[in-house]
Amino acid sequence: MHDPANPSQWPTASDILKASRNIAPYIHRTPVLGSSYLNGKTGGQLFFKCENFQKAGAFKSRGAMQAILSLSKTALSAGVATHSSGNHAQALARAAKLMQTPAYIVMPETALKVKVDAVMAYGGQITFCKPTLEARESTLAQVVSQTGATIIHPYNDYRVITGQATACLELIEQCESLDLVLCPVGGGGLLSGTALSLAYFSENTALIACEPSGADDAMRSFRAGRIIPSVQPDTIADGLLTSLGSLTFPIISKYVQDIVTVSDKDIIKAMQLVWERMKIIIEPSSAVPLAAILNGNVDVTGKMVGIIVSGGNIDLSKFPW
Amino acid sequence: MHDPANPSQWPTASDILKASRNIAPYIHRTPVLGSSYLNGKTGGQLFFKCENFQKAGAFKSRGAMQAILSLSKTALSAGVATHSSGNHAQALARAAKLMQTPAYIVMPETALKVKVDAVMAYGGQITFCKPTLEARESTLAQVVSQTGATIIHPYNDYRVITGQATACLELIEQCESLDLVLCPVGGGGLLSGTALSLAYFSENTALIACEPSGADDAMRSFRAGRIIPSVQPDTIADGLLTSLGSLTFPIISKYVQDIVTVSDKDIIKAMQLVWERMKIIIEPSSAVPLAAILNGNVDVTGKMVGIIVSGGNIDLSKFPW
Repeated sequence: MHDPANPSQWPTASDILKASRNIAPYIHRTPVLGSSYLNGKTGGQLFFKCENFQKAGAFKSRGAMQAILSLSKTALSAGVATHSSGNHAQALARAAKLMQTPAYIVMPETALKVKVDAVMAYGGQITFCKPTLEARESTLAQVVSQTGATIIHPYNDYRVITGQATACLELIEQCESLDLVLCPVGGGGLLSGTALSLAYFSENTALIACEPSGADDAMRSFRAGRIIPSVQPDTIADGLLTSLGSLTFPIISKYVQDIVTVSDKDIIKAMQLVWERMKIIIEPSSAVPLAAILNGNVDVTGKMVGIIVSGGNIDLSKFPW
Repeated sequence: MHDPANPSQWPTASDILKASRNIAPYIHRTPVLGSSYLNGKTGGQLFFKCENFQKAGAFKSRGAMQAILSLSKTALSAGVATHSSGNHAQALARAAKLMQTPAYIVMPETALKVKVDAVMAYGGQITFCKPTLEARESTLAQVVSQTGATIIHPYNDYRVITGQATACLELIEQCESLDLVLCPVGGGGLLSGTALSLAYFSENTALIACEPSGADDAMRSFRAGRIIPSVQPDTIADGLLTSLGSLTFPIISKYVQDIVTVSDKDIIKAMQLVWERMKIIIEPSSAVPLAAILNGNVDVTGKMVGIIVSGGNIDLSKFPW
């Protein structure tokens, strides 16, 4: 029987290497950028793995692509489905379009127009529902029973975790001898993938996860040794609202050294600094690790530090154009 | 006698190649980025030469560095001076700091705090004056008579033009067989340098300059065949307010195919699109060429098009943080 606490069930080094080759034609090998200003300010040498430049604007394209490429021909032809109002929805719609199969996306009727437009631009077929988890799940079940599509969960899926792991695999190839990697955590797909890649390919690199204090379920779960779901999370980092999953939690428990939290104020300050100094757009979720350095929660003095920049999708309609 | 209309006086191919080697240790060889979305939208293949990632956030670091490296030891030890409230001031302060000599910067007392802070962060010594051209010039003359510093003009200086030319030289090395290059124009330092690099190293590439309609002195000068100075220019593209200079105008007249103008509304739209789609911060001045493509003033269908992205310095304090 499947036991997610048993490491023999987890994606292997070979799975991650294979995924990296499989998805390569469909994604960007994103650049690693630095900033002499931020190095001076923090005392460390920071290496930003820029998944904001990834296809569809976020690392989610990796997991979605790997999941779709893992399907049998029959399954693939019936399409894929998910409920999401965020980057996973766009990434899955894009991946499905590339493989010429439908993507059925269940979105709350309150979803931002910019997100709806992005999914539609990739040809996703949207079903709207009430903005509750119950409505999302029951609507998704209905869509699946009508279409026979395969559900691709945004993070609680080993195929997805394996895909997300390829970002850190690339980072390791691009920067040798990192002392530390910092990674934001929401549902834990990116974090558990990052943890596996470090464990397999860079075992002397420490891993610290960074989380908004307004959605600190991962920190509390990590300390308690069991999943404590998020209740009414409230943070500007809209990619990190979800709770850890049954598959991501055991991997995180085993391999992550610590989880630290930061306030929204610190997140905004860090994001602004990256925009101003590095001239790149990162979304609030991606600023969480730098915020943890700048507010003193993570000491990087004299260290080589990799930072996974998860994405760059932001609603600019709020800005004073 | 010196005649700026005589091409034998202009920086040569060898000057530009030498400058490129001289300044290389002090500047970034900036990347060239593309966007499949923008290629699809415009029908061309666009290559953005990202000087927004340049040291001090703009191409100005090239010209300032080249000018300072051209000074004799005696001149260098007395420092450099300029009046500027923009990117040139930062670039000159930075270049002077690297060469361990003072930079005297005359700034209007109305200059934005963010610009003043940036110059001070590079160790520039600021003298404030009334916000008129007369006050700026008389204050600068006073500073120079007291210090013996060498004035480095932001654009009307062959050393500066030679430095700015290295951006397009790199672009030519990074992308073969460009059909067309688009470049914003203010005082014409970047544009005349770009024109020389294309004339020497890529003679089959056309060059079109792009200008805000609220500061269209370059277009009017180009058509009239003589310099018509800017009177009360008004545009969001704050890097393009200046008028063509006596040294830049003849080069531009000879080598530029056309100068087209765009509205501030089009500039803002193009800038937003680059932020959203390419996930990079560019300043309004840098969005002018893309705006000219998107509003139909420049047809890029089927063409390989280089776009000089001049900088990424923007005042984020106006944004809803």
